[in-house]
Amino acid sequence: MGAFERLLDPRGIAVVGASIEASRPGNQTLVALKENGYAGGVYPVNPKYPEIAGYRCLASLAQVEGDCDIAVIALPAPQVAGVLRECAARGIRHAVVLGGGFREAGAGGAALEGELQATARASGVRFIGPNCLGLVNVHARAYAAWGSLTRPPRLAPGPVSVVLQSASFGMSLVIQAAQAGVGFRHVVTSGNEADVSTAEIIDAYVDDPGTRVILSYLEGVADGRRFMAAARRALAAGKPLVLIKAGNTVQGRRAAQSHTANMTGEYDVYRAAFRQCGVIEVDDVQAAVDMVACLLGGRLPAGNRVGVIGGSGGAAAMFADQADLCGLELPAFAAATAEALQASLPPLSVLRNPVDYTAGFPRPQAGLDFERAFQAVIDDPQVDQLAVMFAAAGRRQVAHGGELLARVAASSSKPLVVFSGMDESLAPEGLATLRAAGIPVLASPKRVALAMAKLAAHAGARRALADVRPASAAAGAVDAGTGVDAEAVLRSAGLAGHAGALDEAASKRLASAFGIPVTVDRLLPLEPSLADCEGLPFPVVLKIVSNDIAHKSDIGGVQLGIASPQALLQAARRIVADVRAARPDAALSGLLAAPMVEGALETLVGVVNDPGFGPVVAFGLGGVLAEVLHDMSYRVAPFDAAQARSMIGELRARALFDGVRGRAAVDVDALADVLARVSVLAWSLRDRLLEMDINPLLVRPVGQGVVAVDALAVMR
Amino acid sequence: MGAFERLLDPRGIAVVGASIEASRPGNQTLVALKENGYAGGVYPVNPKYPEIAGYRCLASLAQVEGDCDIAVIALPAPQVAGVLRECAARGIRHAVVLGGGFREAGAGGAALEGELQATARASGVRFIGPNCLGLVNVHARAYAAWGSLTRPPRLAPGPVSVVLQSASFGMSLVIQAAQAGVGFRHVVTSGNEADVSTAEIIDAYVDDPGTRVILSYLEGVADGRRFMAAARRALAAGKPLVLIKAGNTVQGRRAAQSHTANMTGEYDVYRAAFRQCGVIEVDDVQAAVDMVACLLGGRLPAGNRVGVIGGSGGAAAMFADQADLCGLELPAFAAATAEALQASLPPLSVLRNPVDYTAGFPRPQAGLDFERAFQAVIDDPQVDQLAVMFAAAGRRQVAHGGELLARVAASSSKPLVVFSGMDESLAPEGLATLRAAGIPVLASPKRVALAMAKLAAHAGARRALADVRPASAAAGAVDAGTGVDAEAVLRSAGLAGHAGALDEAASKRLASAFGIPVTVDRLLPLEPSLADCEGLPFPVVLKIVSNDIAHKSDIGGVQLGIASPQALLQAARRIVADVRAARPDAALSGLLAAPMVEGALETLVGVVNDPGFGPVVAFGLGGVLAEVLHDMSYRVAPFDAAQARSMIGELRARALFDGVRGRAAVDVDALADVLARVSVLAWSLRDRLLEMDINPLLVRPVGQGVVAVDALAVMR
Repeated sequence: MGAFERLLDPRGIAVVGASIEASRPGNQTLVALKENGYAGGVYPVNPKYPEIAGYRCLASLAQVEGDCDIAVIALPAPQVAGVLRECAARGIRHAVVLGGGFREAGAGGAALEGELQATARASGVRFIGPNCLGLVNVHARAYAAWGSLTRPPRLAPGPVSVVLQSASFGMSLVIQAAQAGVGFRHVVTSGNEADVSTAEIIDAYVDDPGTRVILSYLEGVADGRRFMAAARRALAAGKPLVLIKAGNTVQGRRAAQSHTANMTGEYDVYRAAFRQCGVIEVDDVQAAVDMVACLLGGRLPAGNRVGVIGGSGGAAAMFADQADLCGLELPAFAAATAEALQASLPPLSVLRNPVDYTAGFPRPQAGLDFERAFQAVIDDPQVDQLAVMFAAAGRRQVAHGGELLARVAASSSKPLVVFSGMDESLAPEGLATLRAAGIPVLASPKRVALAMAKLAAHAGARRALADVRPASAAAGAVDAGTGVDAEAVLRSAGLAGHAGALDEAASKRLASAFGIPVTVDRLLPLEPSLADCEGLPFPVVLKIVSNDIAHKSDIGGVQLGIASPQALLQAARRIVADVRAARPDAALSGLLAAPMVEGALETLVGVVNDPGFGPVVAFGLGGVLAEVLHDMSYRVAPFDAAQARSMIGELRARALFDGVRGRAAVDVDALADVLARVSVLAWSLRDRLLEMDINPLLVRPVGQGVVAVDALAVMR
Repeated sequence: MGAFERLLDPRGIAVVGASIEASRPGNQTLVALKENGYAGGVYPVNPKYPEIAGYRCLASLAQVEGDCDIAVIALPAPQVAGVLRECAARGIRHAVVLGGGFREAGAGGAALEGELQATARASGVRFIGPNCLGLVNVHARAYAAWGSLTRPPRLAPGPVSVVLQSASFGMSLVIQAAQAGVGFRHVVTSGNEADVSTAEIIDAYVDDPGTRVILSYLEGVADGRRFMAAARRALAAGKPLVLIKAGNTVQGRRAAQSHTANMTGEYDVYRAAFRQCGVIEVDDVQAAVDMVACLLGGRLPAGNRVGVIGGSGGAAAMFADQADLCGLELPAFAAATAEALQASLPPLSVLRNPVDYTAGFPRPQAGLDFERAFQAVIDDPQVDQLAVMFAAAGRRQVAHGGELLARVAASSSKPLVVFSGMDESLAPEGLATLRAAGIPVLASPKRVALAMAKLAAHAGARRALADVRPASAAAGAVDAGTGVDAEAVLRSAGLAGHAGALDEAASKRLASAFGIPVTVDRLLPLEPSLADCEGLPFPVVLKIVSNDIAHKSDIGGVQLGIASPQALLQAARRIVADVRAARPDAALSGLLAAPMVEGALETLVGVVNDPGFGPVVAFGLGGVLAEVLHDMSYRVAPFDAAQARSMIGELRARALFDGVRGRAAVDVDALADVLARVSVLAWSLRDRLLEMDINPLLVRPVGQGVVAVDALAVMR
């Protein structure tokens, strides 16, 4: 295990600010340690009392004898930094700061939190919190915690480890999972994360051999790259990370910020990062519990194709509706499957996918063999997962079905998930059999479909991670850099030392240096002559060039469709006059003549430097409608062409790329290549580039490539 | 009560095809009647047995003595029609046909179903099914049912009545609601609906004084108008209709059709109909159960503004995120509320909306008065509903909170909904107190927000229904007609007797007859002279006119931006030549010169004649991107301008109407008026108009109105 081994599995726990009042955190921790039978050392610290909860009370941390790995600090905010120093003096390496009154409480609190951080750095003590409920090692019964973390239900030991930025909401998630039968290993509430972050906890869970699934509630991370690295480690280790993210909307962000003051940032970027790292993002408590249940089965699908069988046509329709919305496919069966179904199911059954054996399962009758039918569907080569619709099947039916499915599951490595509306009180035997066989049972067909879609996406992310060659500069380089010498590129493009906005010509040279195709433009003087126009590919576009002007067309700085040299001279006079009238302050460095590009799809690509995640690439269609609909997709840079392709496929308007209404399909291969190149540019220049817009980026018909018609980079 | 009083509350039940085998429907019905203690007459019919389940068995229906209102028919499909005739002969007015093998089983079954319908019509016997699980009157313990409808759990009596097109999925919904504490009055599974429809059952529930909330699972309705009338009656009666609709996507529709063969139709149209009738559509089992729990409280909000208070900032952030997504607002509080919060909550509390009193509730301490805080928020004039975030608060806290909220609820008529992650086993007292006070407790903040948003929308639909003046031709006319003499209008537009596609000029005359503004066009001969051009408002558009050509621009039949009479003559020659070359078969009746309209937002409006719902109006933005994104909204015609305004507001791209990126806001008032006029046109001409497209319909800046630039109507 890593740096936090002893934080997660402490040999002894001191409680500074120990109390005899049941409402105080410093009492609840001690009572929890006692009642749960923690076997390590327990050291209450409070000079006022001889003992608390049966433990001998010490006057100070200095008096702690024996191994002690955590000091739980239950004191008012101004006293906490001093205790950290005492921890260091006594050799206690970890603290858990329970109380609030820090950053979330305004300027005074922020100063106290800063003092805490400085003290921790100076002393080498790592701490959880402040403003949290602490942490629990369920297996070791180690409670460095208070509040809901110490109240019923007592968590059962199991392979799920949890990290929560909001303790109270997060514990409602843990409690509901516990009531659904999930067992836990560690629960850490991270509070303000003034020191130890969610990413570090995830890393510790990856290192913990007993953790199989990681569950997290997150509002924001300060260091997005650090979080992504931890999430990728979890993915690579086969420990799925199931996550609920809040603070994603205007009202939600406002609420989150008055709470832990965690930075939330742009949800679009988080969502991109989650997808790039195989994080299984869910949007509600029940979905998280469902997902954990499905992952504990340990099966991942090879694709998104689901075979559905059951006794409820309505459930099948509900499932199929959701499948359509979340990208699952109900494939046609192979001929052998259809034959097996025909031979084994009752006469009025529907033998296509979704299979409906109608009411009366399991009817004892010659020629009926339900197990053969289930087996045939899961074995079908077109099928990646099996969804079983028991719906309202009764106690004996579920019992019989459970036994049958346990055998089918044992014969296959494909995931199978059951929908049953029955709870433990109504179908105890069947549900117990299914659980023992590792088969998740969810209470609606929609929930089964949603979980299966997320299983499929997660499995795809795992495969993509495995596919990455170490030599692939873009995809493998998230932590390592891309191997591009940014300053050399800038020098070669004549841009070394530039700061501020680059003009269009310079911005295009920058793009071109990274292999991004740009229009072949000609820079003309502000008063061009006929000779200057020789060889131009009329019709052309003429545009003003100025470092000082970002939005040329708004002030008459662009003219389209210029058909001849004479027209160009006239247009040049008009443009220069208009621009000078509108922006007398702007330094004009010339005019750019560019070929007109017709018949292409107008897209745009942008680079932003996110405060949490660094360079991020955004992609979308051009035009005001796409802007209003916010039909954009995002990826954290750098990434490869395969990732770029999935980025394109994420747009709601993706059908436009295939060609609609008589238009030709466009060159998605070239587009994906260019998006990956933009991501390499963004990553390589991350210390120099503030933002960049390539707009429009025109995508031509298949085989004809893409071309950047305009570009604007802002350097620092 | 209405026509189905005795079906829902039978004095006696005969079971034709009574059986001694426990797996047979004809046995399960009898056992259920016996075990549940039905007090009416029970008449098994089977000549083979002297008695079944303790009831004396009869040789035929003719032997039934005493009152008998339902014959349950548990016989193979070919024998059912004969039994219906026997019902009629014996004076039994209702039948329940359990078995399948009818329409859902192919052509042979469809013929049997047709025979059943003809027999029922001839005999006056009304029947439920076939292909269903029957029906139950929970209060009377009357089971005309089998399968999951007769299995545990035994439903508790209560005010919720249910109608289900898929019995097995639907029963999983009923079972989950029952396990959540919901009590039931009637459950009807309607199967293939060969005779009695979901709409008729809803009507019967509206007439049933014991029904307060109606719950339905629906795949499709044959008569959309009939369904809407029933849903509107339920809305007017204050009996909310909560509904899950399946078969809405390509894969979902395919699944639904192999099941009950109900027609599903276009989901867009259903969704519009649901909104127009205040139907509370939910998308999953849990959401339905949540909704029923909220409606049983009997409170409806005056608007979409929610006050949030609790001890979990994370829960508040989760709530606020969902509120943002579903149109709920978290308003700023009035000054008095802020003062009350300041005076009553602990020091580190967040006093803005959402209020966070942090951990430790209810801390007994001088100066703290949590009840005052809850009361202040619910009483705030900016607040329509109160959401309480108990999250992971423990047993004693929920008990205390429950008592406090029960008092707060008693003092206010506003809805209040609690989020708690605790179940009955963890917080029994508090949950019981809340339930007794009619306060719903849902297990996630997202679920609270979703339910509150649907409560608000439903309340809005009720208010809109109350707002409709009897004199309002459009809105009041769904069942009554609009009072427009369609044939007179057609005559006045010179269109009486026309069939097939109308050309642009005729289509515009039709639109104009209903007060829809169209461009002032001039019809020119195919070879116009300079004299013909006199007074034209150049620049103009020139378009071919032909009944035979629907898509003019695809074959060169349109030219834009014609600046002069000379250019018009030239354009006319080019257009006629191109069109003749592309469509030598088409009869050309002239050319239309129309003014160019610039600077307007391009929209389109269409009328389709839906097979289930009749005339429906579709509205969206012009352009291929809007088409690909399917950003359209729908309403069943006719409707008024208020409904049209909500239709416009439903578009994802609605921000375009307010003006973005320097564009002017457009004339939404005029647009709403025109959409309502199109709906009156569609309804008035429903027997003549097959479809109509007004595309583009240009919407000018505020105050400048809208104008139809092209139109195409197809008559029959």
